[in-house]
Amino acid sequence: MGKIKVGILGATGMVGQRLIQLLDGHPWFEVGYVAASEQSAGKSYAAAVEGRWHSATAIPDRVRGLVVGDVAGIAKAMASCSLVFSALETDAAGVYEEKYAAAGLPVVSNASAHRHTPDVPMLIPEINPEHLGIIPAQQKSRGWKNGFIVVKPNCSIQSYMAPLHALREFGIKHVIVSTMQAVSGAGHPGVASLDIVDNIIPFIKGEEEKSEREPLKIFGRVSGSGIISDDSIRISAHCNRVPVIDGHMACISVEFKKKPSREQVLAAWKGFKGVPQELKLPSAPAQPIVYTDDPVRPQSRLDRDNGNGMVVTVGRLRECKVLDYRFVGLSHNTIRGAAGGAVLTAELLKAKGLV
Amino acid sequence: MGKIKVGILGATGMVGQRLIQLLDGHPWFEVGYVAASEQSAGKSYAAAVEGRWHSATAIPDRVRGLVVGDVAGIAKAMASCSLVFSALETDAAGVYEEKYAAAGLPVVSNASAHRHTPDVPMLIPEINPEHLGIIPAQQKSRGWKNGFIVVKPNCSIQSYMAPLHALREFGIKHVIVSTMQAVSGAGHPGVASLDIVDNIIPFIKGEEEKSEREPLKIFGRVSGSGIISDDSIRISAHCNRVPVIDGHMACISVEFKKKPSREQVLAAWKGFKGVPQELKLPSAPAQPIVYTDDPVRPQSRLDRDNGNGMVVTVGRLRECKVLDYRFVGLSHNTIRGAAGGAVLTAELLKAKGLV
Amino acid sequence: MGKIKVGILGATGMVGQRLIQLLDGHPWFEVGYVAASEQSAGKSYAAAVEGRWHSATAIPDRVRGLVVGDVAGIAKAMASCSLVFSALETDAAGVYEEKYAAAGLPVVSNASAHRHTPDVPMLIPEINPEHLGIIPAQQKSRGWKNGFIVVKPNCSIQSYMAPLHALREFGIKHVIVSTMQAVSGAGHPGVASLDIVDNIIPFIKGEEEKSEREPLKIFGRVSGSGIISDDSIRISAHCNRVPVIDGHMACISVEFKKKPSREQVLAAWKGFKGVPQELKLPSAPAQPIVYTDDPVRPQSRLDRDNGNGMVVTVGRLRECKVLDYRFVGLSHNTIRGAAGGAVLTAELLKAKGLV
Amino acid sequence: MGKIKVGILGATGMVGQRLIQLLDGHPWFEVGYVAASEQSAGKSYAAAVEGRWHSATAIPDRVRGLVVGDVAGIAKAMASCSLVFSALETDAAGVYEEKYAAAGLPVVSNASAHRHTPDVPMLIPEINPEHLGIIPAQQKSRGWKNGFIVVKPNCSIQSYMAPLHALREFGIKHVIVSTMQAVSGAGHPGVASLDIVDNIIPFIKGEEEKSEREPLKIFGRVSGSGIISDDSIRISAHCNRVPVIDGHMACISVEFKKKPSREQVLAAWKGFKGVPQELKLPSAPAQPIVYTDDPVRPQSRLDRDNGNGMVVTVGRLRECKVLDYRFVGLSHNTIRGAAGGAVLTAELLKAKGLV
Repeated sequence: MGKIKVGILGATGMVGQRLIQLLDGHPWFEVGYVAASEQSAGKSYAAAVEGRWHSATAIPDRVRGLVVGDVAGIAKAMASCSLVFSALETDAAGVYEEKYAAAGLPVVSNASAHRHTPDVPMLIPEINPEHLGIIPAQQKSRGWKNGFIVVKPNCSIQSYMAPLHALREFGIKHVIVSTMQAVSGAGHPGVASLDIVDNIIPFIKGEEEKSEREPLKIFGRVSGSGIISDDSIRISAHCNRVPVIDGHMACISVEFKKKPSREQVLAAWKGFKGVPQELKLPSAPAQPIVYTDDPVRPQSRLDRDNGNGMVVTVGRLRECKVLDYRFVGLSHNTIRGAAGGAVLTAELLKAKGLV
Repeated sequence: MGKIKVGILGATGMVGQRLIQLLDGHPWFEVGYVAASEQSAGKSYAAAVEGRWHSATAIPDRVRGLVVGDVAGIAKAMASCSLVFSALETDAAGVYEEKYAAAGLPVVSNASAHRHTPDVPMLIPEINPEHLGIIPAQQKSRGWKNGFIVVKPNCSIQSYMAPLHALREFGIKHVIVSTMQAVSGAGHPGVASLDIVDNIIPFIKGEEEKSEREPLKIFGRVSGSGIISDDSIRISAHCNRVPVIDGHMACISVEFKKKPSREQVLAAWKGFKGVPQELKLPSAPAQPIVYTDDPVRPQSRLDRDNGNGMVVTVGRLRECKVLDYRFVGLSHNTIRGAAGGAVLTAELLKAKGLV
Repeated sequence: MGKIKVGILGATGMVGQRLIQLLDGHPWFEVGYVAASEQSAGKSYAAAVEGRWHSATAIPDRVRGLVVGDVAGIAKAMASCSLVFSALETDAAGVYEEKYAAAGLPVVSNASAHRHTPDVPMLIPEINPEHLGIIPAQQKSRGWKNGFIVVKPNCSIQSYMAPLHALREFGIKHVIVSTMQAVSGAGHPGVASLDIVDNIIPFIKGEEEKSEREPLKIFGRVSGSGIISDDSIRISAHCNRVPVIDGHMACISVEFKKKPSREQVLAAWKGFKGVPQELKLPSAPAQPIVYTDDPVRPQSRLDRDNGNGMVVTVGRLRECKVLDYRFVGLSHNTIRGAAGGAVLTAELLKAKGLV
Repeated sequence: MGKIKVGILGATGMVGQRLIQLLDGHPWFEVGYVAASEQSAGKSYAAAVEGRWHSATAIPDRVRGLVVGDVAGIAKAMASCSLVFSALETDAAGVYEEKYAAAGLPVVSNASAHRHTPDVPMLIPEINPEHLGIIPAQQKSRGWKNGFIVVKPNCSIQSYMAPLHALREFGIKHVIVSTMQAVSGAGHPGVASLDIVDNIIPFIKGEEEKSEREPLKIFGRVSGSGIISDDSIRISAHCNRVPVIDGHMACISVEFKKKPSREQVLAAWKGFKGVPQELKLPSAPAQPIVYTDDPVRPQSRLDRDNGNGMVVTVGRLRECKVLDYRFVGLSHNTIRGAAGGAVLTAELLKAKGLV
């Protein structure tokens, strides 16, 4: 049996390029279609990204020659693939993702347009795979047959969501997090070098709001026609841009309803596995959370590629003088936090028979 | 009347060099003596720092030719100056600072050796100048005549101490702070470039302990023969090393006993002045705290030199979802946080008649 | 007598901002007019640069409130100033600089549009002030009365032009130069951080051509109605972009017609003075070339600000195994190489009675 | 048949660590012995490098538990392995490498101690494998039986040696090269971050001399009891340290006895293969030189890992205005330039029956 053909909307941007790289040699999927804006449409993919292919590895041969479609031409996508990844800009995502779904294609989106649409699941596959249960309601209320939309949350939250989720039995109450985020999170050209060499920028537009709100939906529950956020948790985020290429680091202080022991925390992290691990999904790391005993780790450059960029590396667990515990988390923002998270979501959809 | 001659112990290191730079052209003080370890002793200062003078400005002419003394040779210091700045390493500071004080010289120290000695004041001149009141007790209990020791706190706390102090009328209760500290804080050679280019290190040895404990003494009060720390405040610090040359940034969340309004916070910062401002000390900035309305500031490279490196620049005041408020503070770690803070302290001593 | 009012075209960009900064407190000039593209026109200068003022010093008070004019509105400039600095993009410079000159205003341009127009002098004031002698011919052939155009060469050549010029008595024959250029040379946003953190880019569009060709005109001579380039010199340039904020460094190998001794080279550099030094122009450094004996200097961060950014710092003179000598030169690309060089040129115009 | 056991002298340093990483899973060799200085001797390897293991990949399991030997204890090495890699500091290399060879072990050295010993071959396996022919003479004159010494040249020359060698049929005459070298080339801690963030250092101790002299021996010929350098070539090197983690870049201008056409140059590079390619040695890249047509490449971060760090990536071939051609070369300094080059050399020794 052949592989499932997938399409990539916004294929020439940073996340689109990462998707192409991660899907190269994928056991289940192969890229059958790429689309971008009008300017790129009609060119070969190689021509469309000439001078702005950001990866150290070459453009995969099977994608080089694909003719880039116009994102507005949905019929062509329908003919070429069975699922689309959306790496569109927010505005374009707002316009097109529903059209693709209405036309019958499952859409796995990295964009923020539908993150807070109540009947659209926002997935970290290890955390809330059961939110896929909302899809029939999503389809029904919109009169869609086979298409639907699933989204991925923001990259900034991935360094602390899995570690917090693994501790939910103790009741997450308050979280104060300070992030140090890599420049690749802003895409290309993104952050100007003049703004970040020998500098820290203590502000990223919209990022603190996303970092505080998205976790509540992910920790929420499916209820009838929507997902109800868990508003019992309060998160306060300080988001900073730092001169690092890849890897978002977070310093987390957390308060529980019932404070666990240090051993309980470590055991919860070390033993944590989710549905992707049970199903042995191709992109799922054996252990989604890896705790390091090295007191000076995790570090952005040394640990971002752990588990092919899909592992959250956690370290420095210690008591917090104000809340209960504090620790450091690190994840690769364009892999686990973007393209890799989207591929893992698509694998989950396939394993669940939704594609 | 001539200027007061001062000496610098540990004159060849990073902080020693900054002291020499800041004292060049000082209206009250002039460098009359420099001392360092045995290896440097006997050389001219210029020869002793050859190939490791880190400043963009040249070695001041009057210091170039000074013969470097051995830090163990106290008599020579006595003959050459009326006050010494100590930029010694902790161990050497532990050995020598008391000897200099016993010999009759006031010592203003950047080292950590005596920061928690109860009868040694740890000063941020704008915050706790009244702690100088402990000096007679310090002298008496040790049988010292004219000499005494005053210390400066760690550089990591300077970005949040003045902003918190200005709000003390509202009762500081809990503080969670995450710092992003420049490499110059580790001296030279200090942090290896291999460890910090394209990287963040979420650990600095001993720094979190200092960042949590030193503020309590500074906010404490003189009582009989010692300074009693204010243990009603709890501070939790996450300290990170970042690829920035100068400037320590801090993301602060704070809870008050009585939550002020946003206007009250801003008014407290903007109106804040301390004794150094009242006395118009030469190194005192007109406003020790400057609040910026620019939503993307303070930034390390752009704001560290504000007020000749003596101002704490504060920005991004907003409600905290967990505690009461959050904001960002920035200070120059080798000026306000080290050499500049020491010079301001010496100026205060002189203004108070202690030198 | 009041100061001479000057205007700045392209006042909101990087070089425009530097001009405003350098002209603040200038003894002869004051900014009376600022112009930019349509989008900025009508706003106050402070509003026009909000969120993109790149300097660590604040916008000068007298400029904050100036209403930004449309660069197309020449009448307004005529009414407000006696000379304009052009920091326009090449295309706009090609359109507008001649119009301003035709309207009667001297134009000192940082743009490349007229660098190779034969009757437009391209000035490094210490090197070829006599090229101003072409101005009457420039005005006559175009029917201009008081207006004219003078241009500044590219920033990439400033680190080697003065050191080579000081050695011209020995006959410059061949030069191979490899530059390491700061990101500020590309303006803002300019170089993406993703492209330059932990990276070197061995290519800057158009830069090698400029670095090889512009020196020949500067070393040329006025002849009738044009400037004749000195084509006896051959220069080969390798231009690289490096992760440095400010400061262009150059590694130079040079062959002479008559090889000087090492002492002759050093004496030529140390003794070098130009017309700006003789006239004591306000922005002229006392010594335009400073040779450092420190074997590890010049360094970009430590030496770029020498002489307020107007000095070329030279070091590491040694024999070349292939040509005659090799050495390292460094200059501040946005001061000596752009805004500062333009201001010095305007000062020369004033001293020569051309403004 | 089992793998050949190899030892690593200086196993705890930067190059030693890279060797361990590269030998993990090697088809022919396995690490059977590690040695370092007295301080580390007796500890497990994992304990000896605790807190200073620089790689993003973990210490290989089979090496973690090896007890570190004292480099002075040669008997133990004899008992544990059939070849040693030396990553010793120059001084220690001068003392020990001959002792190991005298004791009967082939030594493949990364140190500079014997680079100019006439009967010690300095190998880039693609360039001068025939220099191994000197080994019998080396052994004979010293009375060694099975042991001998082979060395690897400096990392700084690897970005231009293979590209020049591929063009030797045209007669290399003059070369001017300017390097931009990564901080990993100085080992750890090596370059202080304070010295290189936002900076360029135009000097690396001893590096220009090595970059000019070593190529002549490599391009030389075996003659009786020694290797005669090719003194017909003159090389002039400017060596610079840049803020890049890995990857040495070189800007090269070259003059030939008989200038080839552009097509000839490209053909020579594209077709170049050496003995390691013919013998299909495990670490040999299929093509040792890869030419990129992308006008903005090679770039340090994007191209250093080409061919697992064993390829020299070349680009930007263009005419030189002074010599004949200029181009850019890039190689990974700790792989091709150090550990990888040493492993490839050992593979060649094995293939030639010398181990």
